[in-house]
Amino acid sequence: MSTQGGAPQEFLDWVDNEQNIEGFINRLGEAVHIPSISSDPNRREDVKAMSNWIFDQFGKVGVDVKQFDLGTEEETQLEYPKAVLGRLDVDPSKKTVLIYGHFDVQPAVGQWETPDPFTLVVKDDGRMIARGSTDDKGPVMGWLNVLQYFHDKNEKLPVNLRFCFEGMEESGDGGALDRLIEEQAKPGGMFEGVDCVCVSDNYWLNTKTPIVTYGLRGIVYFKLTVWGPDKNLHSGIYGRMVNEPMTDIVHLMSTLVNVDATIRVTGIDHSIPRPTAQEEQLYEAIDYTVKDLQDAIGPQGAPVSDDKNALLMNRMRECSLSIHGIRPTLTDQDLVTPVTPGPTIGTIIPYSATGEFSIRIVPPLTPKQVEGFVAAHIAAEWDQLRTGNQYKLDHTSEGDAWLADYNHWNYEAARAATYAVYGQDPNLTREGGSIPVVLTFANSIKVKGKDGQPENANVVLVPMGRGDDGAHSTNEKLDRSNFLNGTKLFGNYLYLLGGLPKNDS
Amino acid sequence: MSTQGGAPQEFLDWVDNEQNIEGFINRLGEAVHIPSISSDPNRREDVKAMSNWIFDQFGKVGVDVKQFDLGTEEETQLEYPKAVLGRLDVDPSKKTVLIYGHFDVQPAVGQWETPDPFTLVVKDDGRMIARGSTDDKGPVMGWLNVLQYFHDKNEKLPVNLRFCFEGMEESGDGGALDRLIEEQAKPGGMFEGVDCVCVSDNYWLNTKTPIVTYGLRGIVYFKLTVWGPDKNLHSGIYGRMVNEPMTDIVHLMSTLVNVDATIRVTGIDHSIPRPTAQEEQLYEAIDYTVKDLQDAIGPQGAPVSDDKNALLMNRMRECSLSIHGIRPTLTDQDLVTPVTPGPTIGTIIPYSATGEFSIRIVPPLTPKQVEGFVAAHIAAEWDQLRTGNQYKLDHTSEGDAWLADYNHWNYEAARAATYAVYGQDPNLTREGGSIPVVLTFANSIKVKGKDGQPENANVVLVPMGRGDDGAHSTNEKLDRSNFLNGTKLFGNYLYLLGGLPKNDS
Repeated sequence: MSTQGGAPQEFLDWVDNEQNIEGFINRLGEAVHIPSISSDPNRREDVKAMSNWIFDQFGKVGVDVKQFDLGTEEETQLEYPKAVLGRLDVDPSKKTVLIYGHFDVQPAVGQWETPDPFTLVVKDDGRMIARGSTDDKGPVMGWLNVLQYFHDKNEKLPVNLRFCFEGMEESGDGGALDRLIEEQAKPGGMFEGVDCVCVSDNYWLNTKTPIVTYGLRGIVYFKLTVWGPDKNLHSGIYGRMVNEPMTDIVHLMSTLVNVDATIRVTGIDHSIPRPTAQEEQLYEAIDYTVKDLQDAIGPQGAPVSDDKNALLMNRMRECSLSIHGIRPTLTDQDLVTPVTPGPTIGTIIPYSATGEFSIRIVPPLTPKQVEGFVAAHIAAEWDQLRTGNQYKLDHTSEGDAWLADYNHWNYEAARAATYAVYGQDPNLTREGGSIPVVLTFANSIKVKGKDGQPENANVVLVPMGRGDDGAHSTNEKLDRSNFLNGTKLFGNYLYLLGGLPKNDS
Repeated sequence: MSTQGGAPQEFLDWVDNEQNIEGFINRLGEAVHIPSISSDPNRREDVKAMSNWIFDQFGKVGVDVKQFDLGTEEETQLEYPKAVLGRLDVDPSKKTVLIYGHFDVQPAVGQWETPDPFTLVVKDDGRMIARGSTDDKGPVMGWLNVLQYFHDKNEKLPVNLRFCFEGMEESGDGGALDRLIEEQAKPGGMFEGVDCVCVSDNYWLNTKTPIVTYGLRGIVYFKLTVWGPDKNLHSGIYGRMVNEPMTDIVHLMSTLVNVDATIRVTGIDHSIPRPTAQEEQLYEAIDYTVKDLQDAIGPQGAPVSDDKNALLMNRMRECSLSIHGIRPTLTDQDLVTPVTPGPTIGTIIPYSATGEFSIRIVPPLTPKQVEGFVAAHIAAEWDQLRTGNQYKLDHTSEGDAWLADYNHWNYEAARAATYAVYGQDPNLTREGGSIPVVLTFANSIKVKGKDGQPENANVVLVPMGRGDDGAHSTNEKLDRSNFLNGTKLFGNYLYLLGGLPKNDS
């Protein structure tokens, strides 16, 4: 893989300068010291302070920043923290790259090994521990480090930049950012003319091999409810006299998925094309072992296969179905204890029962198709049950799957930039989870396609941190080396894009 | 059916005397006005006050009453209300009858049609509405009415009496009353020499036909837990890579019971002997229809059969299995939101899942046998699953089934007493629920059997109230006619027993 046209040695040396490093780490320390927990209404002011801090920092290095109102949260009646959008134009003949990141964090519950989760501690082993260090303040600071270089050296950037930083990623904003992105992607908006998008908000699969990510699973949540009697019944009086909704739903839910995790809902597994030879090679190349999975789930966890490639394909290119629980639908009546002693709940035949499950989906399946398959499956199984009860199936929320063309020049740049820093080809991977904003970028930002028709912009996911960073856990960390190498990688990526002609689509 | 030797007309006229009736109802009003809710720690003093009130009332009519300390409730560190035991000896050549009742009540939640659930209101249609009116203060007052007659008339009772009144029936006392009964049943105890037991704490099947009850189902509660991974897993990352404990448990629980309520656990249904011809006639005679069931469960509830006898046998002489729910075993980690937005619980693969179910059992099955059958069934089904996870099966509590000889003289007296009052044979029924104290009486009180060996005392269940009394619901009521007829029935029962020789076992 070629690194020709990558970052000059001067940039790399500048990143390695001890005094500069001290500055990078101090700035990351400042960033994590603001406890911008978006899910906690009591911390909303901190998330707003974080929005202002990001606004100031990117303004200082020459970005034309602007804060955008996202409205008010319905439940709390609190204002959302403002999104920070930015532009930095250098040359209309250069590519325009849109960078995304978020400045809010998860809560910091549990026992941490440092005195305060919001005070950065750099350990001797290089771990920089703090809530937000890797998710996602570290990567955002990585971009800031790169901009600092051009600002301090008074150098012209190799590409035009756009930024999109938000403060409600971890807890949701009711679609407000999606609407802002769609608005700004229109002619006259800040994102008009964007050629490609780069998101750094995921992690390596392991602790040693960099990755570039080209796919995400979508998700559909389902709620199945079965009911019959008009109130909860006492099992002493009615046990074996009626069709019990709980029995019906347990039978129904047992038909959704096999113990080996293959999906029994007709249409789903069969809709996924077999991997091509090229795709199989990608999985073969991924640095991952069954032991990596076993280490992650603990010694008593049970992988569904002893083949590493099969496990990875199950995660990245197959649908998955998880059952979340089956609970009685409780009423006031349950507060009254039963005729006979014993656990109250234990003598009740629930008049209604609710089961929840979700399906992670991959292309070519859409949420609509999966909803159709599930509805047909449940209807067919219901007929088999021969119960006198009723059922209702709802899908409570959904998100599309996403798959990018990893042969696109945006990927070539990301992969070459990674190779230049780490000396190895990154693993090309797909994530089993969902990052909805990626879909929003891909679908709302249009570029001119080869045939002159508008097509979806290419988005690349370039993580900075390692698989053991513990993004949402105690002792979240970002390794010092990943912070510095990530900064170099980001710089390299921009230089490589700067070497490409503007109109190469 | 003969009523020879029943209550004299003088007694029946006395019960029908308007002034006496006013006294009965006023006394019931006093009883229900003490809100003796045993499950509410804030009402414990009221339950104690009720114990004192019962002590006083039965003392006034000549019973040698004594209050017994039952110790302290562990969770609340509150003293239990004292049990009230009593004796009234008239003639050692007469039978000695033990009467049981309870003076505590359920909470009174929900919207009542009367201003205060603890103030008795007598409606024009005869309903006497109050919490505790039918469960169980009405029946206890019925016995008091009978004693009042003998006291006022200065007449000698036809039998010797023993009483056992408790104040923790609705919420449990950790076995304290059971231990007291066992103690008092021993030589020198208050229950030494008891010939038979009568309990009035259940209800007619319908609103018009009296019953006498000779059986109760037992119950065993089960908790099944499946686990594997050492923490909850994100479904985006691990979906389709591991055996999910929730999938395993849903498959397992679906093998327990069929939609038609027949039990799939090998050994249970097959252990129950087919009904004898005599038994089938009993069910044929019971005044009950499929419509009665449909009315009780609402128009959308689904009976498992359209044959009334089959439904009754399912309730009274078959085991039943009800599933109460399957829930993820939650940990602290669940408080942290997942990597992707959406319902927190909805992106989690629970590291462990717990399912709860209970089995109502009938003779000849014992809890031990049923526990064995379930353990073997789960073990066999588990092997079929071929999962790498682990499971554990616990039985959390249990109670024996009970079946009495309904050809015993105690039943002959109860049936004849009922016939004398209502002019019809009572339906002989079994209850689908459990009343553990009945087992305690049956097992701890010994009488001399035909062969001279000690055998379990015969217990008869003689309800006062109707099936629509709403014992644990809003607008609990006892019909005025049931209160008065029940009083007559109790008196008749004692007169009939008084006509029997002491040593007829």
